Amino acid sequence: MDIHAKRIKDLQCMLKQHGLDALVMGRTLEIGFLTGFHLDDCAMLVTRSGAWVFMPKMFVEQFRSKIDCAAAVDAGGPAETAALAKVKELKLKRAAFEPESETYVRGTAWRKAGLQEKAGLTGALRAVKEGEEIAILRKSCRIAARAFGIVKPRIKTGCTELSIYRELEDTMQAMGAKGPSFNLIVGFGPNSAMPHHESSERKLKNNEAVLLDYGCVYDHYCSDITRSYFHGKPTEEFRKVYSIVAASQKAGLARVRAGVKARDVDAACRNYISDAGYGQYFIHGTGHGIGLEIHEYPRLNTKFEAVLRAGMAVTVEPGIYLHGRFGVRIEDSVLVTKTGCEILTRTA
Amino acid sequence: MDIHAKRIKDLQCMLKQHGLDALVMGRTLEIGFLTGFHLDDCAMLVTRSGAWVFMPKMFVEQFRSKIDCAAAVDAGGPAETAALAKVKELKLKRAAFEPESETYVRGTAWRKAGLQEKAGLTGALRAVKEGEEIAILRKSCRIAARAFGIVKPRIKTGCTELSIYRELEDTMQAMGAKGPSFNLIVGFGPNSAMPHHESSERKLKNNEAVLLDYGCVYDHYCSDITRSYFHGKPTEEFRKVYSIVAASQKAGLARVRAGVKARDVDAACRNYISDAGYGQYFIHGTGHGIGLEIHEYPRLNTKFEAVLRAGMAVTVEPGIYLHGRFGVRIEDSVLVTKTGCEILTRTA
Repeated sequence: MDIHAKRIKDLQCMLKQHGLDALVMGRTLEIGFLTGFHLDDCAMLVTRSGAWVFMPKMFVEQFRSKIDCAAAVDAGGPAETAALAKVKELKLKRAAFEPESETYVRGTAWRKAGLQEKAGLTGALRAVKEGEEIAILRKSCRIAARAFGIVKPRIKTGCTELSIYRELEDTMQAMGAKGPSFNLIVGFGPNSAMPHHESSERKLKNNEAVLLDYGCVYDHYCSDITRSYFHGKPTEEFRKVYSIVAASQKAGLARVRAGVKARDVDAACRNYISDAGYGQYFIHGTGHGIGLEIHEYPRLNTKFEAVLRAGMAVTVEPGIYLHGRFGVRIEDSVLVTKTGCEILTRTA
Repeated sequence: MDIHAKRIKDLQCMLKQHGLDALVMGRTLEIGFLTGFHLDDCAMLVTRSGAWVFMPKMFVEQFRSKIDCAAAVDAGGPAETAALAKVKELKLKRAAFEPESETYVRGTAWRKAGLQEKAGLTGALRAVKEGEEIAILRKSCRIAARAFGIVKPRIKTGCTELSIYRELEDTMQAMGAKGPSFNLIVGFGPNSAMPHHESSERKLKNNEAVLLDYGCVYDHYCSDITRSYFHGKPTEEFRKVYSIVAASQKAGLARVRAGVKARDVDAACRNYISDAGYGQYFIHGTGHGIGLEIHEYPRLNTKFEAVLRAGMAVTVEPGIYLHGRFGVRIEDSVLVTKTGCEILTRTA
């Protein structure tokens, strides 16, 4: 069975399990996940036995020429209105929508039409990667990992952060990526100490820290990687901080396995850094799920309640940030397995 | 006065005019527009006399080092919760949020906390471009326009759509663009007849239509342009359709002026194509506003109620799509002026 037909069938099973007649969706991401058709301004209705996508007239032929798993319907107006009309026509009493995926305007329209909120259905399907999706994610991560080896030798004194941003993008695109998976972070010197620094015209000087947090979108799947190093002769303190972060990440990676709490991976990283005396400088969570979105379920932090499952893809990215001086973060994207994890962002 | 300080002041005037005490915002786009700080997971509160941005601890130093127009606050948890606590602390009775900008989850949280819905405040500020913003948008459009002249000679028989997609991206990035402003459309042959075709590995053959719908993001501002032409010796029908679309666009551009209804520009384009006998093949609206978003207020179609104002930036993009054969669309981004418009996507 086609992967998209399977996903729709899985969703239909979930509807039965949760006593629902139907799910309506308005966001491109979920419709793309379920059908392979990633265009805006559509709405989708999945019942226990059927699936429809309501869309602008101009998309209909394109959809039908490529997709079999759902029926394409010319919405003849707002796609949401057409979807609600179908819910009414089919007399679906227990129809739901996912609050986490909708805009306020659309979600409010669903709610006022009598639909109930039901979180996490497509999110659960998306969290565990399977089939061709894993191969695509591996490729997305491998492109990112290989780009470091290619771009690093080009990072020379006098380069600007933005020029390296473009080198990373170009290198990944030359390997088949569609584009960057987020606003890439290239931080030189003190800029490396800002976890979400916006890459600038700042030039690299001799003897300072470099932080590259980047990734690509390959066939809709996002990769995420961070590499830190010292340009020139590393100071004693940089060496020390780097080795603490590296050991922290290693401790976190060693905890990753199906059945382990996401929180426990965070604790493994955090405790190592705290024990080394830098706890106050690790100012963000340890990681997050990746897939069609760069940040998705689950989160790896001190509070998030989730248990890792085989097939989940997450980042492990501890860091230490010494404001005004330098920062070090080491991040890899990994695939959770029954016995541990496969690190996707390391080249052989 | 700094442009961001001015925007916050303009918003504060609007609060007074509408009898509101405050506006809360959770989307990066509005916060970026008002402060120049474009990072996720923040929330902003603007009262008649103050402005605060609540953010993760790791952003605080970065924000303070660059931005004066609002106070940075470590949210110490979800930014929305911190913003609502401030609303309560300041005893703001008539606080509002913009339904069109919020996610369902966040908007619902605002609503349940007693905030009222008030649409269009920041949208009105964003619609009319002013100051440095116009120069940035001009540059964004000029980069896109120049890319056509550079890339067209490289579009040869046997090229794939995706290779031209990358050529367009690379060319625009080499001129300073951050990236593409949307999922660029490169359509060869029959693919040119699908208004939102997803660029593929399809190769260009001799004697067929080419459609390029593309644009870039430069300093956060989006440009949008479409060029159509025939690769080889144009057929009689292509020539005819092209000349109709070109004349239709010319008729539309001639209508653009401050004080004119957006609908009337659509009608000028649409009537020309209908009179030429191709009305049923013009299957989308005539245009849309551009700015921080690739599609923003106003829309130029048969139904949208809006009057053009000097400083608005919109696209004019009629097209004719002959399914299975070829399509032609001609699109320019223009700045509305008191006496007409400045076409931003044409090179001198």
